[in-house]
Amino acid sequence: MVGELRFGVIGAGYMGKAYAIALSEVATVYELGIRIGREMIATSSEAGAADHARRFGFARSTGDWRALVADPGVDVVAIATPTPLHKDMALAALAAGKPVICEKPLAATAPEAAMMARAAARSGLRTMVGFNYIQTPATQLAREMIAGGELGEVIRFSGTHNEDFLMDPEAPHSWRLEAAQAGRAGAMGDVASHLVNLAQFLCGPIAEVVADTQIIHPTRPGPGGPRQVENDDQGNMLCRFASGVMGNLHGSRVQAGRKMGLTYELTGTKGSVFFDQERLGELHYYDARDRAGRRGFRRLLTQPGHGDYGRFCVGAGHGYGYNDMIVSEMAALIRAIETGAPLWPDFAAGYEAACVIDAMLKSVEERRWVAVDEIREELT
Amino acid sequence: MVGELRFGVIGAGYMGKAYAIALSEVATVYELGIRIGREMIATSSEAGAADHARRFGFARSTGDWRALVADPGVDVVAIATPTPLHKDMALAALAAGKPVICEKPLAATAPEAAMMARAAARSGLRTMVGFNYIQTPATQLAREMIAGGELGEVIRFSGTHNEDFLMDPEAPHSWRLEAAQAGRAGAMGDVASHLVNLAQFLCGPIAEVVADTQIIHPTRPGPGGPRQVENDDQGNMLCRFASGVMGNLHGSRVQAGRKMGLTYELTGTKGSVFFDQERLGELHYYDARDRAGRRGFRRLLTQPGHGDYGRFCVGAGHGYGYNDMIVSEMAALIRAIETGAPLWPDFAAGYEAACVIDAMLKSVEERRWVAVDEIREELT
Amino acid sequence: MVGELRFGVIGAGYMGKAYAIALSEVATVYELGIRIGREMIATSSEAGAADHARRFGFARSTGDWRALVADPGVDVVAIATPTPLHKDMALAALAAGKPVICEKPLAATAPEAAMMARAAARSGLRTMVGFNYIQTPATQLAREMIAGGELGEVIRFSGTHNEDFLMDPEAPHSWRLEAAQAGRAGAMGDVASHLVNLAQFLCGPIAEVVADTQIIHPTRPGPGGPRQVENDDQGNMLCRFASGVMGNLHGSRVQAGRKMGLTYELTGTKGSVFFDQERLGELHYYDARDRAGRRGFRRLLTQPGHGDYGRFCVGAGHGYGYNDMIVSEMAALIRAIETGAPLWPDFAAGYEAACVIDAMLKSVEERRWVAVDEIREELT
Amino acid sequence: MVGELRFGVIGAGYMGKAYAIALSEVATVYELGIRIGREMIATSSEAGAADHARRFGFARSTGDWRALVADPGVDVVAIATPTPLHKDMALAALAAGKPVICEKPLAATAPEAAMMARAAARSGLRTMVGFNYIQTPATQLAREMIAGGELGEVIRFSGTHNEDFLMDPEAPHSWRLEAAQAGRAGAMGDVASHLVNLAQFLCGPIAEVVADTQIIHPTRPGPGGPRQVENDDQGNMLCRFASGVMGNLHGSRVQAGRKMGLTYELTGTKGSVFFDQERLGELHYYDARDRAGRRGFRRLLTQPGHGDYGRFCVGAGHGYGYNDMIVSEMAALIRAIETGAPLWPDFAAGYEAACVIDAMLKSVEERRWVAVDEIREELT
Repeated sequence: MVGELRFGVIGAGYMGKAYAIALSEVATVYELGIRIGREMIATSSEAGAADHARRFGFARSTGDWRALVADPGVDVVAIATPTPLHKDMALAALAAGKPVICEKPLAATAPEAAMMARAAARSGLRTMVGFNYIQTPATQLAREMIAGGELGEVIRFSGTHNEDFLMDPEAPHSWRLEAAQAGRAGAMGDVASHLVNLAQFLCGPIAEVVADTQIIHPTRPGPGGPRQVENDDQGNMLCRFASGVMGNLHGSRVQAGRKMGLTYELTGTKGSVFFDQERLGELHYYDARDRAGRRGFRRLLTQPGHGDYGRFCVGAGHGYGYNDMIVSEMAALIRAIETGAPLWPDFAAGYEAACVIDAMLKSVEERRWVAVDEIREELT
Repeated sequence: MVGELRFGVIGAGYMGKAYAIALSEVATVYELGIRIGREMIATSSEAGAADHARRFGFARSTGDWRALVADPGVDVVAIATPTPLHKDMALAALAAGKPVICEKPLAATAPEAAMMARAAARSGLRTMVGFNYIQTPATQLAREMIAGGELGEVIRFSGTHNEDFLMDPEAPHSWRLEAAQAGRAGAMGDVASHLVNLAQFLCGPIAEVVADTQIIHPTRPGPGGPRQVENDDQGNMLCRFASGVMGNLHGSRVQAGRKMGLTYELTGTKGSVFFDQERLGELHYYDARDRAGRRGFRRLLTQPGHGDYGRFCVGAGHGYGYNDMIVSEMAALIRAIETGAPLWPDFAAGYEAACVIDAMLKSVEERRWVAVDEIREELT
Repeated sequence: MVGELRFGVIGAGYMGKAYAIALSEVATVYELGIRIGREMIATSSEAGAADHARRFGFARSTGDWRALVADPGVDVVAIATPTPLHKDMALAALAAGKPVICEKPLAATAPEAAMMARAAARSGLRTMVGFNYIQTPATQLAREMIAGGELGEVIRFSGTHNEDFLMDPEAPHSWRLEAAQAGRAGAMGDVASHLVNLAQFLCGPIAEVVADTQIIHPTRPGPGGPRQVENDDQGNMLCRFASGVMGNLHGSRVQAGRKMGLTYELTGTKGSVFFDQERLGELHYYDARDRAGRRGFRRLLTQPGHGDYGRFCVGAGHGYGYNDMIVSEMAALIRAIETGAPLWPDFAAGYEAACVIDAMLKSVEERRWVAVDEIREELT
Repeated sequence: MVGELRFGVIGAGYMGKAYAIALSEVATVYELGIRIGREMIATSSEAGAADHARRFGFARSTGDWRALVADPGVDVVAIATPTPLHKDMALAALAAGKPVICEKPLAATAPEAAMMARAAARSGLRTMVGFNYIQTPATQLAREMIAGGELGEVIRFSGTHNEDFLMDPEAPHSWRLEAAQAGRAGAMGDVASHLVNLAQFLCGPIAEVVADTQIIHPTRPGPGGPRQVENDDQGNMLCRFASGVMGNLHGSRVQAGRKMGLTYELTGTKGSVFFDQERLGELHYYDARDRAGRRGFRRLLTQPGHGDYGRFCVGAGHGYGYNDMIVSEMAALIRAIETGAPLWPDFAAGYEAACVIDAMLKSVEERRWVAVDEIREELT
């Protein structure tokens, strides 16, 4: 790999396109000094793949993802397919000795995710899970503030990941609603896995959970009439982090009015922050050490010095966007591949999130607090 | 009672003052056509009471609350004292045949509250608990929108009542932190009882809860050195309403930056609303029936036609304030006394809130879901 | 006047009611130690006055405002009538040796206002103009911050007073739209006189203006068909304060969506504040001395210590409302009457605002910058 | 030009980098079906250019911009240099028969801009001025709403472009502060030219202006001691559009707390919108036709269907960012070059903005309203 890192992307849906965009610009934004190749794209048909190669700027295409994984011209594999396909693709890529970035959630169940994390650990290769929201400069700043003690001791994490893309009961059935495909966790697995990862990013491992979930629209229109929905439309979870911090995490895909309702409030003994992904350029910060009568949440507009913001814009408040998160993600992956340095969230982190989701499911079924350790297996 | 309703107020702290303010203006604001007398005020000393009578405009004063309750010139008793004193005062007032308004929470425990609610039921007198926040025009509007089906079927209630008045570990110890005085529920009993009442106002009875609480600062400075804190600084609760609606309720007295952080988001199948008491003049409303591409949360500024707002201001967005809530509360009480009509939240509602708090405590102790029915006794 | 100050109120519209509410509670809120009497109310008919006396709690009533002014039982006169009636009433009250509070704007023209201000100056009596918005704790705080140098040197004032109560072209014609009644300034005289007063409160005298105004709906429905609108629906003004500070002030009564759109941003060399009356409990404060990377507008929730907020509420963010502003205004008037201390905004200040409005009108007519000195006469 | 359009970029500062980023991704984002080449970059030195070519992904580099303009491998010229250099570069590019995109403002004075616009008109080539802010989906939506009559008849434009990058009096002197280099308009020329262009985009030509400007910090540190600041730090402007619409436009580079304070409120007879670039993903929309009691500003999160948002993100509220605006700009330019279709804002539009700025300067000097026609020359 002299001077170029060549990516193969599997999938050409919106995440496939997002990867293509990120790969096209990452070297320029980060001034990497290495060329990033869009070498090959795979979709389920040769023709479709060829068309997407043309539209997304890939040199080659294939209708067979196994060909992409095996291709000697592909250095890194990026998996942007529906969840049930992740495992086989990732295992094949690792077996071929190639670093992998895989969309979230890593797998539909913790055991599957364990298998992938174990393979990653054995391979020694860099892996990454596409939990892109932790890349926002605001959230990178939040983490830095925690680490620097600006909030004092953290005592509470309150988060939501609420969207409403399925609030219409006439929205059609899809693989996302089938337990065998997407897992038994719906909003709490698909959508809220971002929130779980984010909570772990900011507060460390989650130790115990108790949860409640609900299906609001039990059937949805399918090709041959109404079909059963098999996983939750909304869910609530309380947790304790290993640190003792209390948490509450709430997810939904039927929350009227919320479009990208990934929010958190992080409370410490000396200050706090809150964040809303719908206003991703802002972190609201309360500093209890401000002088009396002049205390209040400050709207910090992200700016150079906050995460990688300065790579994208020179002035505060100019606007870091969705695709920029993917670029930051790719840059982190590329640097880790180049240097061999550790990377987070890797497959082990994807597995950690999956364990929390499975603990949540168990809690719902058994109506009790469940320790994540009841789910967690040794990876090695 | 011809042409005048004479109030006796017990307590002259900030709620005593708030009652005095409300009594001074309620007849004018609501154009009641009846005089409202500030007849007598009682505090723990004759001299203090006399001073407060002068400052708050009461005709007479006493250092003995029992004298106030018994006084034939007092038609209605208003109790604005610390929680542990509520029960004896309210029972005496009811025994004397007088309607009562009592500050929240009604009592420190459900059994005590039951005793009070039972006495109220037997007396046939009007009673009220000072859960004033349900009086805001925005929240009255929210309830009306639910009743009118504007949100479709309600599917979720998410609420907080977070404040930070005890975030400083050097804040002195007080009766509020003693289980024997204030109850075993701290933030979740004192502060968040408002939230429980509000949830019940909007979504009906709560059937089951699971909760987690925490003391952040285990001791606080007392006169003779550090003293133990005996109830929670923060707590999280999940619930199911009797209707099946999912809920999450979170309370704190150490939530850095939150001053009057009573908020809720109420999600329905066709729309939703959210509210923040720190911006009490606004209700944010999402209507999923708005045309495509033009959907978003509307900031409704409260205006005439929303609750009793029009009694206070003629124009939208002019500003209904804290004391106005108490005026609305008093107006509701006075009308109910005049007409004999039912009133909410009465002592039975105060007991309902107490049962939820006790169920929450049991859930924390036993680490499980607890049905509120396990706590609830028959009141009759 | 031993122990009681007895008010006579002229007018029973919404401002008459607001005065009645304020008079009912001011002694309690401010713990004045003096009784405030609602002695007499005057409207245009005996019967109407008697009815309003009953509803608003006045002891007596009259259909003749001159009787009220002359009545020996009335110590202070409060004028809550349409603008064209202010002058005669105020002059009569001053001639009778009684302090006066008069609704804004003081008069429809600067010469009329000058006559009133001159009479006030000669009388030595306390006078006040009902520019109530300067009473909000947030705005009182802003002024204190300027005085304390917290913003550095002030360099710019940007303000609006936009409402939309006349945006509907079918809204009926009224005296407010007639030059002979309400003055030749419409939105810029009626609505934006608040803004002018506020600008003067915060930045001192205005020296020069240039302006532009517009009538959007030239006729409106009257009893006998469409009638001409004779004053502006919206206007823009640039100004220089005597201090050299640059200003821009904008007003409207047809600004779709703005209900109480009185806003300002005050920029200094070391910080700034902005305010919106629709969220009157907040002042947003930027302190350029905050450490790098942590600078942003702070949302200060008003609290005890900010203006007279503590008289009304004990906790931050609890909610000071519209009627509270009138109470604060009355308290200021009462204290000034009791002590003889100066009071602002008095009739001289009302005249100052009127001069700015007239300078603005002249600027519009002559399409040029106009010095306020071209309008201003000597008051003595 | 078969299948590839090759760009030469002059300048490697932050706008040069922004252009490089945009060029790297535009074909993928817009699925153009044509390759976009980063052919050559020019800076003031060979070495610097070579380094930037490597960092920004250009094939070739030069220390001589004239070589770039003349190079047969360069199809389109992008000028990202300080304002005083624009004219010669643009004229040379047009003379070489190449389409040009040039940073804003087009030139430091209207006569210079006229020369460029005239050359563009004569050439028949596509030109563009980098007024990128009109590309935000929110602003594209605003324009569409006006065109579709959703706001009724537009009656007012209120806008600001306030930043604070020069609020520190110790910020060093630079070419931007010299009249001979950057023009006699400072904040009102450099910063607020965006606002002028935006106003023209939404409301059409500006007919008349009256303005006031101020230098707050008259000198700034230079290499050899304090140097004079020769253009305004802040300015206010009133205007009338040719349509009769009233406008107010305010700009600053010393507005404490404002980082990207490009805002506007556009009022119509049936509704209104407001926008703040610091929250570029939102357009706030008031529809007066909403039912009574349910009217309020809606926070519309931009989404597919609003401008080109759908090219970048599939879901509402995901986050369009600063660099995305540049991509949209490049896409517009490329499409216009491919099809020969008209393009806006072209050099003629850049000249229109320059005329307004010059009219503003004249208004300040002569203290009067100035018609833009007094400045405007015939371009042909």
